[in-house]
Amino acid sequence: MTAIPPEPIRGQFKGKDIISLGQFDTDCIAKLFRITAQMREVALSAAPSHVLDGSIVVLLFYEPSSRTMGSFDAATKQLGGQTVVVTSPQQYSSVAKGESFADTIRTFEAYSDAIVLRHYETGSAATAAETARHVPILNAGDGIGEHPTQALLDLYTIWEHTGRLAGLRGLVAGDILNGRTVHSLIKGLALYEENELYLLAPPELRLARDDLAAFQQSGIRLYEVDDVGDIPRDCHFWYWTRVQKERFRSDEEFQRVNNRFIVTKQLLETYGNRDMILMHPLPRVGEIEDAVDDDLRAVYLRSQIRNGMYVRMALLALVLGRIA
Amino acid sequence: MTAIPPEPIRGQFKGKDIISLGQFDTDCIAKLFRITAQMREVALSAAPSHVLDGSIVVLLFYEPSSRTMGSFDAATKQLGGQTVVVTSPQQYSSVAKGESFADTIRTFEAYSDAIVLRHYETGSAATAAETARHVPILNAGDGIGEHPTQALLDLYTIWEHTGRLAGLRGLVAGDILNGRTVHSLIKGLALYEENELYLLAPPELRLARDDLAAFQQSGIRLYEVDDVGDIPRDCHFWYWTRVQKERFRSDEEFQRVNNRFIVTKQLLETYGNRDMILMHPLPRVGEIEDAVDDDLRAVYLRSQIRNGMYVRMALLALVLGRIA
Amino acid sequence: MTAIPPEPIRGQFKGKDIISLGQFDTDCIAKLFRITAQMREVALSAAPSHVLDGSIVVLLFYEPSSRTMGSFDAATKQLGGQTVVVTSPQQYSSVAKGESFADTIRTFEAYSDAIVLRHYETGSAATAAETARHVPILNAGDGIGEHPTQALLDLYTIWEHTGRLAGLRGLVAGDILNGRTVHSLIKGLALYEENELYLLAPPELRLARDDLAAFQQSGIRLYEVDDVGDIPRDCHFWYWTRVQKERFRSDEEFQRVNNRFIVTKQLLETYGNRDMILMHPLPRVGEIEDAVDDDLRAVYLRSQIRNGMYVRMALLALVLGRIA
Repeated sequence: MTAIPPEPIRGQFKGKDIISLGQFDTDCIAKLFRITAQMREVALSAAPSHVLDGSIVVLLFYEPSSRTMGSFDAATKQLGGQTVVVTSPQQYSSVAKGESFADTIRTFEAYSDAIVLRHYETGSAATAAETARHVPILNAGDGIGEHPTQALLDLYTIWEHTGRLAGLRGLVAGDILNGRTVHSLIKGLALYEENELYLLAPPELRLARDDLAAFQQSGIRLYEVDDVGDIPRDCHFWYWTRVQKERFRSDEEFQRVNNRFIVTKQLLETYGNRDMILMHPLPRVGEIEDAVDDDLRAVYLRSQIRNGMYVRMALLALVLGRIA
Repeated sequence: MTAIPPEPIRGQFKGKDIISLGQFDTDCIAKLFRITAQMREVALSAAPSHVLDGSIVVLLFYEPSSRTMGSFDAATKQLGGQTVVVTSPQQYSSVAKGESFADTIRTFEAYSDAIVLRHYETGSAATAAETARHVPILNAGDGIGEHPTQALLDLYTIWEHTGRLAGLRGLVAGDILNGRTVHSLIKGLALYEENELYLLAPPELRLARDDLAAFQQSGIRLYEVDDVGDIPRDCHFWYWTRVQKERFRSDEEFQRVNNRFIVTKQLLETYGNRDMILMHPLPRVGEIEDAVDDDLRAVYLRSQIRNGMYVRMALLALVLGRIA
Repeated sequence: MTAIPPEPIRGQFKGKDIISLGQFDTDCIAKLFRITAQMREVALSAAPSHVLDGSIVVLLFYEPSSRTMGSFDAATKQLGGQTVVVTSPQQYSSVAKGESFADTIRTFEAYSDAIVLRHYETGSAATAAETARHVPILNAGDGIGEHPTQALLDLYTIWEHTGRLAGLRGLVAGDILNGRTVHSLIKGLALYEENELYLLAPPELRLARDDLAAFQQSGIRLYEVDDVGDIPRDCHFWYWTRVQKERFRSDEEFQRVNNRFIVTKQLLETYGNRDMILMHPLPRVGEIEDAVDDDLRAVYLRSQIRNGMYVRMALLALVLGRIA
């Protein structure tokens, strides 16, 4: 699938597809985050919201993702909207009979006010956006492509904590080579002035040299380190990630690099500071000790997940024109 | 499974099962289509509908059908109702443990105000209707049996376009032998006076001689043709269909007849007229060129899909007695 | 998985997990059943309920169970709440990537006001309850452990019919050895004074001697019989069960004991009485003849299923603090 680049959001969310972080500038991120903060109040309020009353959102998931689907499903319903869930259409009836992706998209847009698409193929969200005539497409992850709402919830979590997205110092650890969420976070922070990131990874999991060069050119300062002793003590956030087992050719290769760096209470005590937050895009498989979970700085099982729902609520409300 | 014939609708939809097109006479089709037109307004309106407030519709699908399920799901929610989705119960728990079909139906009727049933076995919808004591059954396709809402949405699409269902001339092309939707369309149009259909198919895909005789006896005029040159220029509609690959014993046999007749822009230009519409029950797999999609006469990816949702909204509202 | 015993309900349902029948005393069962009776009125009323307006209940099902899932789904929606359905997370994405059960629970609690959990592993509901920080867990069956809402709906069905839960005489038949529902029923009735149960089973399917001793010590009187001639004529209820085929090592062993005792119209006529009810937890596979279904005393396909939904409505409303 090939596709034209998605349209920038600029001031106007209504009717826009949400395909890529690249559509966002700092102004529209600021606007989105102001609305996201309001959505938090809506979700915490006992009073039911009517923002999406009468709206139907199709959740079209070509591959399962309980977490992302649950988040979009809950986001829609928090606002009084309804969902129609369609999973693995490629195994069933029409698509299995040879229907084109475009016909499938046009079928489900006929039933809905918006389509949230998860697909295993990179670029499929952009293709869907070109195809759909009447409803916005929201990309919930397209293969190794983009997953913009994940990137936005990470940025929002930092913004919520620090009140800004510029002049920040952060630590990113784990699988810097393959981690989609890491790449998105770097791109997002590169939109702002004076950010610097320390990238902690074993040599095998460092950024590809091309990526490193491209990111640096975008203005963000990146420092590669491979020892916990090199972590600066004054980070605003730590962003830990899982080593992506599925990207390795053998279990042996994977085991050689897996969990080289693990967050323990002691690590946090020694190299962290009181004001930082500790993030993780989840799932984790040992990179952070369970004992760390109760630390107030650990936001991955708390506000970070909730923030995902709030960001999705905000995006749905905005692209459907229910909030301006 | 054997079953008694379902009860005719006559004037009274409330509480009726919707099993077969054979339950409908011209009066109740007229009534249904008046309501369907209103449902279109409801769906297009920004204001949420409360017609099905407090109602729960079980979508009981023994085989997956994303399209039909999505349409019924959206139809219910467009009217403010809720659905409980149950897929492939035969693989799970109770049915797998040996529970009878009747017990399954009676279990799910206890949770709901109506059951939409999709089943791979012909006659199962009628059996379910006999079994259920308290709620109406809506047949969403039972094997090679009936799929009445598909037939009704096709008729509605013609009625919406021409303002009538009598005195029409139509072209039906593709798999006339096996196509369930084609057979239903013929039956539906046979209820009205002065209709004639041209059936365009390779010899291998013509109507079975028994079917041809039976249909002709019902009063509709049928003409079999096997060359595009025989298409009358003044058709009110063209109804194209997919060759049902799953009915052929070998891929070779299938390839011999598949896509003998394809709608191209040129074919439409040469043999069509300005006022006709081009229909297809979907999915399509090459019978209509993508280039034709933007032609205003091509309704298959537009109003035909939407009309399916509107017809289902109307039926749900009627059998649940929420509209009279 | 190991877990601390769940907290007793005592007077206070709000915020409590519902893990085990052992959390209930007679006072809180009485309260629950008063609310359950009100829920019946709510469900039968044409007016939509707003008791759970704005609430989201996650249905987290590690193994499929159409019946239990449908009942909780419908219960939530009958009260105006919404559900987010997550099935077989262990096959998908995060859990498949090695995420811990605790992280999965904490993820889904971030999206919801309550989690209904079905799991194949005994004790998992208690573990989930310990893990969740903000929302109540409702156990919808954990392996061969507990399924408290099933036990409560059985007790409610008896209470609804007789107006009390003490001084009752009942017959329990079928698979007394393996039947989880039977064990729960005995435990439930043992909370009250002066109850006695006749246990009708072939020798192979009698209670384990340990269980028999333990139950008898709890105060309920149990009489083992193996001939229909020993059924007392004045039972308040008969509770029939399916022989659990999945517990036998060979089909031969299963066939030797299966359906030794079948409820026929004649059996009911000969050994029953006018005022009793005939219950079954379903699914049935031949233990009760279909011809018995229309007998007014047969409640298994009628009020017993509905009562399950009412009990779940009551529990959801209570633990979410929407009713006091």
